[in-house]
Amino acid sequence: MAHVTILGTGNMGKAIAGVITAGGHTVDLIGVADTDKSVTGDIVVLAVPFPAIPDVLAARGASFAGRVVVDITNPLDFQTFDSLTVPADSSATAEIASALPDSRVLKAFNTTFAATLASGAVGSLQTTVLIAGDDADAKAQLVEVITAGGLQAIDAGSLRRARELEAIGFMQITLAAAEKVSWAGGFGVAA
Amino acid sequence: MAHVTILGTGNMGKAIAGVITAGGHTVDLIGVADTDKSVTGDIVVLAVPFPAIPDVLAARGASFAGRVVVDITNPLDFQTFDSLTVPADSSATAEIASALPDSRVLKAFNTTFAATLASGAVGSLQTTVLIAGDDADAKAQLVEVITAGGLQAIDAGSLRRARELEAIGFMQITLAAAEKVSWAGGFGVAA
Repeated sequence: MAHVTILGTGNMGKAIAGVITAGGHTVDLIGVADTDKSVTGDIVVLAVPFPAIPDVLAARGASFAGRVVVDITNPLDFQTFDSLTVPADSSATAEIASALPDSRVLKAFNTTFAATLASGAVGSLQTTVLIAGDDADAKAQLVEVITAGGLQAIDAGSLRRARELEAIGFMQITLAAAEKVSWAGGFGVAA
Repeated sequence: MAHVTILGTGNMGKAIAGVITAGGHTVDLIGVADTDKSVTGDIVVLAVPFPAIPDVLAARGASFAGRVVVDITNPLDFQTFDSLTVPADSSATAEIASALPDSRVLKAFNTTFAATLASGAVGSLQTTVLIAGDDADAKAQLVEVITAGGLQAIDAGSLRRARELEAIGFMQITLAAAEKVSWAGGFGVAA
């Protein structure tokens, strides 16, 4: 059984916690301000907006050593909705991995709106979580936790693919913000 | 009624021709070597691999003036399957638009495998064509042609969003090449 710590108690943190507990795994859901609570999960999900990441790493980064760390962020410029705030040839996940050399860092959950994690469906398709990262064992652990919770999960390749996952997340958010898709819909994956 | 010229007679050219004729619009499907056939479409679809684009533009670019030009390419490095061959902050479509200042250039059809254009479905979802470009009238023309042919079409934003559409196409091809999804499946859109 996996034990998961989720940092961040917003819609995404709560929805991910629901998936994990549905699969019989255990969760600590911790607010970023709950500095008295320590990180104990085999897997740590950073369920905070990208601009909050530096403070989380400064406050908690040392406690992530040896753990699988899951970045779910979409580093959009929310002023313009016209670009990401990370370099075009990089990704939020690459930056986080660079800051956490003693953790195995994955990208996941950034292409699934919270509502689709809760419902298990994107339209008529089962919700699919795409996972990128360089550590095969870490990806396999996360795939197991997600599929136990009733969703599909796909290994989407190396950490370099986080760039493409962030592009998908970016496009999906702009489509929802423009009311072209619902915040309960978006991109589904048909195997 | 729109008249469409498709340059390229491969799987994608044929599948796009099927959508257009299904909607009651007319198509000329021309091979790139058919230099005796002239381009007459209001809309011109460049249904060739990205490496073939420079030769097409050199041979035919002048005849695209005043027309809507649709770029469907996924500029992957097919040796490594690990990157695109265009600069990270640009796109194939941006490069084509730069070479065709007298045309209205759109990105479309690069996120839909040929089989999903032919079947009209991505799993249990209706196939959706995402379209990026800076000319609203050109996008509306293409949306009409696609929806008349029985698919969904969504205006995915400005030409800058071609970068994200190419990232989606890149990810989808790598997933299919790795047998994580079928070449008859991939990304669907739930409105």
